[in-house]
Parts: sequence; structure tokens; C-alpha cells
Amino acid sequence: MVYTARLFRLSATYGSTTLGLRLLHSTRPVGSAALGQIQASQLQKTLTTKPKPLVPKEDLIFGHVFTDHMLTFEWTAKAGWGRPQIKPYGPLQIDPCCAVLHYALECFEGLKAYRDAQGKVRLFRPEKNMERMNNSAERLHLPQFEGSQVLECIKELLRTDERWVPEGRGYSLYLRPTLISTENTLGVHRSNSAMLFVIASPCGPYFPTGFKAVSLYCDETNVRAWPGGVGNKKLGSNYAPSIGPQVMAESKGYQQVLWTIGDDHELMEVGTMNLFVFWRTEDGNTELVTPPLDGTILPGVTRDSILELTRSWGEFKVSERKINMKQLARASDEGRLLEVFGAGTACVVTPVNRIHFQGKDYQVPLDPANSESQAGPLAARIYNTLFAIQYGELPSKWSVVV
Amino acid sequence: MVYTARLFRLSATYGSTTLGLRLLHSTRPVGSAALGQIQASQLQKTLTTKPKPLVPKEDLIFGHVFTDHMLTFEWTAKAGWGRPQIKPYGPLQIDPCCAVLHYALECFEGLKAYRDAQGKVRLFRPEKNMERMNNSAERLHLPQFEGSQVLECIKELLRTDERWVPEGRGYSLYLRPTLISTENTLGVHRSNSAMLFVIASPCGPYFPTGFKAVSLYCDETNVRAWPGGVGNKKLGSNYAPSIGPQVMAESKGYQQVLWTIGDDHELMEVGTMNLFVFWRTEDGNTELVTPPLDGTILPGVTRDSILELTRSWGEFKVSERKINMKQLARASDEGRLLEVFGAGTACVVTPVNRIHFQGKDYQVPLDPANSESQAGPLAARIYNTLFAIQYGELPSKWSVVV
Repeated sequence: MVYTARLFRLSATYGSTTLGLRLLHSTRPVGSAALGQIQASQLQKTLTTKPKPLVPKEDLIFGHVFTDHMLTFEWTAKAGWGRPQIKPYGPLQIDPCCAVLHYALECFEGLKAYRDAQGKVRLFRPEKNMERMNNSAERLHLPQFEGSQVLECIKELLRTDERWVPEGRGYSLYLRPTLISTENTLGVHRSNSAMLFVIASPCGPYFPTGFKAVSLYCDETNVRAWPGGVGNKKLGSNYAPSIGPQVMAESKGYQQVLWTIGDDHELMEVGTMNLFVFWRTEDGNTELVTPPLDGTILPGVTRDSILELTRSWGEFKVSERKINMKQLARASDEGRLLEVFGAGTACVVTPVNRIHFQGKDYQVPLDPANSESQAGPLAARIYNTLFAIQYGELPSKWSVVV
Repeated sequence: MVYTARLFRLSATYGSTTLGLRLLHSTRPVGSAALGQIQASQLQKTLTTKPKPLVPKEDLIFGHVFTDHMLTFEWTAKAGWGRPQIKPYGPLQIDPCCAVLHYALECFEGLKAYRDAQGKVRLFRPEKNMERMNNSAERLHLPQFEGSQVLECIKELLRTDERWVPEGRGYSLYLRPTLISTENTLGVHRSNSAMLFVIASPCGPYFPTGFKAVSLYCDETNVRAWPGGVGNKKLGSNYAPSIGPQVMAESKGYQQVLWTIGDDHELMEVGTMNLFVFWRTEDGNTELVTPPLDGTILPGVTRDSILELTRSWGEFKVSERKINMKQLARASDEGRLLEVFGAGTACVVTPVNRIHFQGKDYQVPLDPANSESQAGPLAARIYNTLFAIQYGELPSKWSVVV
């Protein structure tokens, strides 16, 4: 492996000259392959001439407002990755025969940039998103990339659109890296061209008025993922089929789908979140349990963080193991169920207060010490801890200053 | 239900004046809903000023060349379907936050237009495609539509691009209706806007030099569809995950994936085709069998046609039932296997000559009377019959003159 220092070749048609200083000394491994790799040092910037007005914080709805710029990387099988581009946010020209519109050759990530009390912008374990996106890309035979280089470019997007990172606890700038096939032929085969892009959307707290516990409908008809399927990859394919069941759960008066699989209704996920159950087991142990990464479960960054955090506390058993609906229902009936919550980037944790299964509603406790509370003590503690790390209040290797 | 005769409101900026006569008396049911429905009578045409040169027949590669025009229908939750448009083929402007690029909110169809010996253009059971597309749309909570109206518009696209329907046995114009979400927000929810479009691609015979039998690799790792999944809908979601296994099969020297499910390797599909097995059962019956439509199998138009056709012959048992790899392997070993073939719009039938399963290649007979033949007698007979119907040589209600 040969390392070469790359010349700094940034060009900007407008604006910032600070980028050069930051990226000038960037180096990257160059293998024997002649194909282009993503090089943050080659980032090219074209800034908007029409910056949009910021949207008042109280008007932010998740995923509705986007910043002034986006980051794009184009790839072809012949030439590899081209030069990274920051350019004004705007529509893509996509041919109607493009594979992304027909065969769902698309995968994505979701992560957030937080503004800390000192005004600095921070990311939370962003390398995990790069790693997962490469796993998704591999599954689709879309091009992989060097995550650290894409991350450098994402940081530059954040510097470019820094005014869009909202201030205040619970506010953040949601980042959406997306990788699509741009193959313009109708055969179902490996893509010869692709595009990675990153867009950014300012958003408010998931629960603007504090926690709000949700009710779950255990879907016995639809199955989110299957052994031998792609449930452990963040592919568009996993999301389209989830909308029908979600609409169905809402029509029955519940807020999210509880996904299960098999005759014994093994628990999988909650809506688009990982699932955690905190309970006293039949043999009297206190245990936090989440389904194992057996190929059907999305390896969530928040899931992983909760496991590491609670294991570091050493206060109760923390398990990745299978658990089914009958066990959960019995625990509820026997008063052994302590808490149930979903976990994901959007919400950190979402407490659950009720689960419908086979015609019966099973109650899930929230805070026994406070009947007004919408979150159990464990969910609240995890939320506060991760929140403090994300906003730089608690020092942690997980929080990366941009 | 009130029927109203619609005024003819076609506008064309260039070209044909024959459309009016054809659509003038079109009527459609108007319900109490105020939302717009697709009305072929309102089709608006904008013809290209730069018609492309036709591609020589011998240079046609499936899905690489497209005709001069495309058909589009836009929908919003507020207004329903807008006016159908025929316009020059060209790129769509798609916002980078559009749900189709993130959550695979897309479904499609594939059907062909054939030119018969009299020069007339024909479709094959196109109402089946409209019906299936509505089922796909429903599963994604994308808008449904009146298939007969879309079909009228497709016929007009065919009249508009008639010079692109190639002449000659085996040649056809492949039509690709596609329905995508155009929702420009990042939340995972029901779409508030969508677009249906139809593009057309001239293509040559699937087997330019006569039949060519293919080898199959039985994939024990990946599962195409599962109970509670969406395998019976023509969604993009089902195709993205199939490319990896297909590449893997090719890397092992086989041409297509044989999809199975479960511990007993129940047979499902072949590549992107339905699967048929023709054999002598252990109790001595001659039987044509294909997996049943249990929710995991695509309800193929060719599949359905083969079932109806062979049942009408009354010469052997025709079954839709489960069959597993062990049964198939034993039949091969015991000399009871007569033929195996895939069935789909692209190829009509694709004969199979070999199946790899758990380290062993199982031979599948082709034509015992002709060692040079690349198709068994049943596959060839089905092919020739459907072909004759599609090209108008054999009268049938299945063939629709445009």
C-alpha cells in the first residue's frame, strides 16, 4: 500500500477559502487499481447565489426543509469515483429508465449534526453510518467508498451550511447520505453508474413537549424481514412495504407497528426503530433485552450505543437474544414488565405504553414513581445520557467536533 | 353511477390528427369523488421536434434504446389524477429528498407490443398488467387508477411511436409502465404525490439463435420473498436484493438463480421468472407443476397463460402446488424429470438444462428425440403457441389489436 499526499485542487466559484487549510494535508491510501477513489481533497464547491431564508425553529417539520447545498459524488464502473461536489440544493435529472426508479437500487443513512453550548457543531459516531452504508452498497452491488473521505466532505458540507444547524436542546441538522444507481438501462443487473449524495434538513425535537409514549400494534400479517433477506441493511427495499402496515396500525388506533416473525411471534423491530424490553425474567433477573443481529435486524447506531452504555453501567443483565410476544405478554400479565422502548437516530428512545396482540391490549409501565411521566426511568436515563454526549455536555469518544 | 360523455380536449403541438376520432366517444364512470380520475379522452400530446433515428434491429439490446415519446400521469392527494400527457422522452426532474430515491416507493409492469404479419400492432392480455399494477400500487399506498383508461393512453403512445414497433418474429416493443412516489419529504409515510409513466423500448428475440437452455444455481443463502412479504407484487423492493445472488450464481458458472425457501428448499422462482416443472410423479402421473400463488410468488401473465393453455389441452395433470428441491433432485436421479423451464414476458419460456444443489449438478432433460435441441417438447410447444397468439397467427381473445 502506497500513501501519496494529494495536491489540493479545490475550486470554489463563490465563497469560502478556509477549506484549503483544512484539507491540504489530507492523504489517502492508493492501491493498484486505476479506478478513482473518493478524495475529500478534491472537493469542488459551487455555492448558491440565492441562499434561502432560515425557517423559524417552531415551524420545522422533520424532513420538510433542506439547506442551501448538497454534496454529490458520481461513480462509473469505468472510471470509479469522480470529484466530490458541493453545489446548490436542487433537483436531479433522472432518466425514466433509470434503475433506481424500477429496481429500488438505493440505500441510505440517517445521522444528525448537533450544536453544542459553545456553538460548535458535533456528529455522533458518524463512522458507524459510513460503515453501514458500505455494507448496504455491497449488498446491492453498488460502489463502496472510503468512509473517512466521505465524512470529511460531509464536514465541509456542514461548514458550508453551518447557519442551518439549529441551536437548542433537541434541535439538530439531520443528514441523509443516499446512494442510488444511475444505470440507464432496463435489464436487472449490476449497475455501471451510481451517485452518492448527502442532503441536510434542520429538525426539532422528536418530542417537542417532552416524552410522549406510543402504543404498538403487533402485526400478525406482515413481516418486515426474513432470514436470507435484507433486513440488516438500510435499503429502500425495506421501507416501501412498511407503509401499508403503518397505515393499518394507525387506522386501528395505534401509533406504530410491532414487527414480529414466525408462529411464536418473535419480536423484531418497532416501526423504523430497534426494540428494547426491560423486564424481570421468570427466574428473577432484571434484564434489558433486544433482538440479536441475526441478519433480520437493522444494526442501529443508537441500538449499539445503548448496549455499550448499559453494559458499562453493570447494573443489570444486558442481552441480545430472541424474545417472543407470548413471553412479553406473560411478563405484562405477571407484572414483570418494566419498560419497552424503541431506539433510533430520530428519537434516541421512544417509550411504549401499550401493545396490542391478538385482540388484547397489554399494558407497559412507564414511570411507577410518577404517573404523569411518559417515559420509564431507564428510557429517560438513556435518553439524557446520549443526549448529553450528542450535545457535548458529557465528554465521549462518540461525539466528533466538526 | 353516472356516465358522462367527455368533451374531446386533445391538444397536440405537432402531428397526428387521427386521435380525435378514436377517443371522441370515450365515456367513463364518474363517481361522487371530486378527485380527478385518469381520462384517456383528456390526453394531451406534445410531440418531439427531434425524432431519433431507428436503431438497426440487429443492434437492439434489451432496455437500452427508447422511443421518441413517453406517457405520463401525475397525481396528488388533493386533486387526484391530472391530465394524461404524451411528450418527448426525456429525464425527469426529481428532488434529492424524493421518497422514490429513499424508500423504494415504486412499482412497475412489463408487457410487449407485437407487429403481426398484416403490420398491425398487438398487445397480449394487457388488462392483466393493469390489474397487477393496481395491486402493487395498493400495497405501497400509491394511487390506483382505472386500467382501461391507462390502456387507452398506452395504445395512443403506440400509435404515436408506431414506427418503433419492430417487424419480424421475435421482435417487439417492450412497454414499461412505472409508478413512483414524488413525495418530497423524508418522513416514512403515505405519499401525497405520485407519477405514473410509460416508456417503450424496441427489443429483439430473447434467444436470437433459437432456444438456449440455461443452468440454475439453487441459492441456499438468499430468499427472494417470504410469507407476509411482498413477493406477489411487482415492486422495485423485490428486485434490488436479487442482483447480488444473480452475480454470485454467475461467478459460480451458472446463468440464473433458483430461488427456494425454508429448510426443505421449497421451489419459488427462477431469476425474474416463474418456474415450471414437468415430470412423472412417484405414482406414475405426468404432471406440469408450478408453485401456488400463496403470496410469495409473482402472479405472472405468462404463468397464468401457460396454466390456462395446458389445462385446455387436457393431456396431463396441471398443478399449482408446492414442490421442493429434494423432490426435484430425486426425480432427476430416477429419470422422472421431463422438463424444467422459467416463464415470463421477456422470454415466454426459458428451458433449463442443469440445476446445482448442495454441491451436485442435477441434469434436466431437454428434447430426448433431438440431442441438439435446447428446449424440451413441452416448452417448445408452449412457446410456439403463445408466440402464434402474440403475433396474431392464432386467433385468441388474449391478443388485442391496437
